[in-house]
Amino acid sequence: MTDLSVLRLRPKSKPQAIRHGFPWVFADEAVLDRRTRAMPAGSFAVLEDAERKPLALVTVNPNSKIVGRVMDTDPQAVVDSGWLRARLMRALHLRERLYDAPFYRLIHAEADGLPGLVIDRFGDAAVIQPNAAWADRMADDLADALVDLTGVSTVILNGQGRARGLEGLEERMEVLRGQAPTEPMPVPMNGATYLADLMGGQKTGLFYDQRPNQAFAQRLAKDATVLDVFSHVGGFGLAALAAGASHATCVDGSAAALELARGGAGRMSAADRLDTVQSDAFKAMEKLAEDGKRFDLVVCDPPAFAPAKSALEAGLRAYERVAKLAAPLVAPGGYLVLCSCSHAADLTAFRNASARGIGRGGRRGVLIHTGQAGPDHPMLPQLAETGYLKALFFRLD
Amino acid sequence: MTDLSVLRLRPKSKPQAIRHGFPWVFADEAVLDRRTRAMPAGSFAVLEDAERKPLALVTVNPNSKIVGRVMDTDPQAVVDSGWLRARLMRALHLRERLYDAPFYRLIHAEADGLPGLVIDRFGDAAVIQPNAAWADRMADDLADALVDLTGVSTVILNGQGRARGLEGLEERMEVLRGQAPTEPMPVPMNGATYLADLMGGQKTGLFYDQRPNQAFAQRLAKDATVLDVFSHVGGFGLAALAAGASHATCVDGSAAALELARGGAGRMSAADRLDTVQSDAFKAMEKLAEDGKRFDLVVCDPPAFAPAKSALEAGLRAYERVAKLAAPLVAPGGYLVLCSCSHAADLTAFRNASARGIGRGGRRGVLIHTGQAGPDHPMLPQLAETGYLKALFFRLD
Repeated sequence: MTDLSVLRLRPKSKPQAIRHGFPWVFADEAVLDRRTRAMPAGSFAVLEDAERKPLALVTVNPNSKIVGRVMDTDPQAVVDSGWLRARLMRALHLRERLYDAPFYRLIHAEADGLPGLVIDRFGDAAVIQPNAAWADRMADDLADALVDLTGVSTVILNGQGRARGLEGLEERMEVLRGQAPTEPMPVPMNGATYLADLMGGQKTGLFYDQRPNQAFAQRLAKDATVLDVFSHVGGFGLAALAAGASHATCVDGSAAALELARGGAGRMSAADRLDTVQSDAFKAMEKLAEDGKRFDLVVCDPPAFAPAKSALEAGLRAYERVAKLAAPLVAPGGYLVLCSCSHAADLTAFRNASARGIGRGGRRGVLIHTGQAGPDHPMLPQLAETGYLKALFFRLD
Repeated sequence: MTDLSVLRLRPKSKPQAIRHGFPWVFADEAVLDRRTRAMPAGSFAVLEDAERKPLALVTVNPNSKIVGRVMDTDPQAVVDSGWLRARLMRALHLRERLYDAPFYRLIHAEADGLPGLVIDRFGDAAVIQPNAAWADRMADDLADALVDLTGVSTVILNGQGRARGLEGLEERMEVLRGQAPTEPMPVPMNGATYLADLMGGQKTGLFYDQRPNQAFAQRLAKDATVLDVFSHVGGFGLAALAAGASHATCVDGSAAALELARGGAGRMSAADRLDTVQSDAFKAMEKLAEDGKRFDLVVCDPPAFAPAKSALEAGLRAYERVAKLAAPLVAPGGYLVLCSCSHAADLTAFRNASARGIGRGGRRGVLIHTGQAGPDHPMLPQLAETGYLKALFFRLD
């Protein structure tokens, strides 16, 4: 056994939360002496309570508000290649039970026992997002394990985004194994084909989390005219076309994302049923209303308007405005899908903002379904309050 | 226009809630003078604010805590056969879009614009639950409209259950159209076949609300051994068998429900893969634990332990106990599904009780899915807090 460092809880911090499965130690809960502050970000330590009783094995990052993340409830565990493989296998078993094809989020951080680490699988490629320092340090071990266990030939490290900044990690973009793909990768999902740019896209190039919500929207889409606002690469629009929608209009600010949407539609032989509009979403909705346009199904899946508590009020106003602008675009008896991926806006707050916006848009509706992220995005029950993705399906009068 | 009675809000009651779509007037919000108290339960009236401005057409029940229920936002609407048919058609259109076969909840009360009324459809039979006085009075009109619009030949009025008591309505059980079925009716759902006793069963003989949750459980069921506790007619057990479970054990207190479960399994040619245990569920789980039994998938779908706020604490303790007894019965890496149909226990409270019970049962797990009632059970956004059905899908270590 190696002689590990120690991270100690302060006398007033309650060790019960950790014992009950809460995975984080915040900076104000730990003794941050000079020795602790000197620990390398991403190193491992034994977490002890104030009475020096070992609680767990943690990874330490003195540069983060979360100074400790539980790696293993066994304080004597050793995080090596075998340990990594066991965690990856457990996650892989779940996905293989859930999905017919190898396109899914393989690792969803804490809930898959690999804190701060996200891995998305795209057939024979995998994209790693190491949003915690330990995963940055062990990226090579992760790549080896992924190649061995899943048979992927390409492993990309996508070290971008807000989460890394909070951990004091710099931006990185690397091909760890295999070749950087030169073409967008076709991804089958819900009977549609999406094109994912694994090197240049937002996050890991495609959002798997909306899969069950796109599947639910498909049940409303047959023969329907569809408006997909904030469409990215055509998430809801292409799903609707795959389910027999008569026409879809995708609106997004990104020309690159819309080109991928058109490419996906082309592979589905549905290019003639797709229009794309590159525009600010709010302006596009105002223009469509001025032109008197109506759609049988309208979906708004905006970026996080309330990514943090400080942005909650402004975020909820933005969600309300989306609902207010979108509701008049729904044909009588049609459907409106409103999504939020904001951690800070909980379901009740988002639902209230949405209902208020629909009312201010001059419409009434009932809620027929509330969707969340798919099961390849598991949650620790202790963190379930933060379940970030909400999709509200309204039927409007 | 008939000269309608008036229900008036008290000066301190805020008419905004009604204008924004809240559907109920509570007894302490209305002027309850002798004239109002004399209104027949189930009659119609114009709801006015304290300044005598008309707000809506309501149905009045002086015997209920909910003295007024909004029938129509147009105060001049007339609730006649044509009005009923329009509401039924709107609801039917939604269900026909959602489902391939005519087995669903056709009317889910307020959210389908027919307050207090529940109608379940079983192929060419319909079961009406009039849990508001107006629907009791108009049961014949409803039966006529149902026969005309849907083509059902049998209409049964099931006037049982707690909700009617709260409205001061007596128990009734009547065949309004056609013949009382002499055999349990086969109901196809999620590829399984259930037997529903439309005359003698709980509520309307089968619970459609768990359909999406049973479908999700099917994704975990292939080749699995399954324990379905509080199984009723085999809701989760038969779904699992239809999805290729190697064996299912259904536990319920009701011999009649278990006989229907065996009958369903027989029609699915799966009788050899089903065991039934008639027992108190808690005792049965203790016995299975003593015998060292383990299952790949365990589902607990108990009756409402917290049907009202007064029963909340005791109810949450009961849910925790279910989780504590069920968790040890799950094989390593297996799945535990915990359901609550209690209005009073909200999602957070139920999830916390469940996670606590799992921990006290000596296990850890992650939440892979949170399910609700299916979309044939729509909700008014203004009442969405009361979304009663929760199904938590845990993967245990």
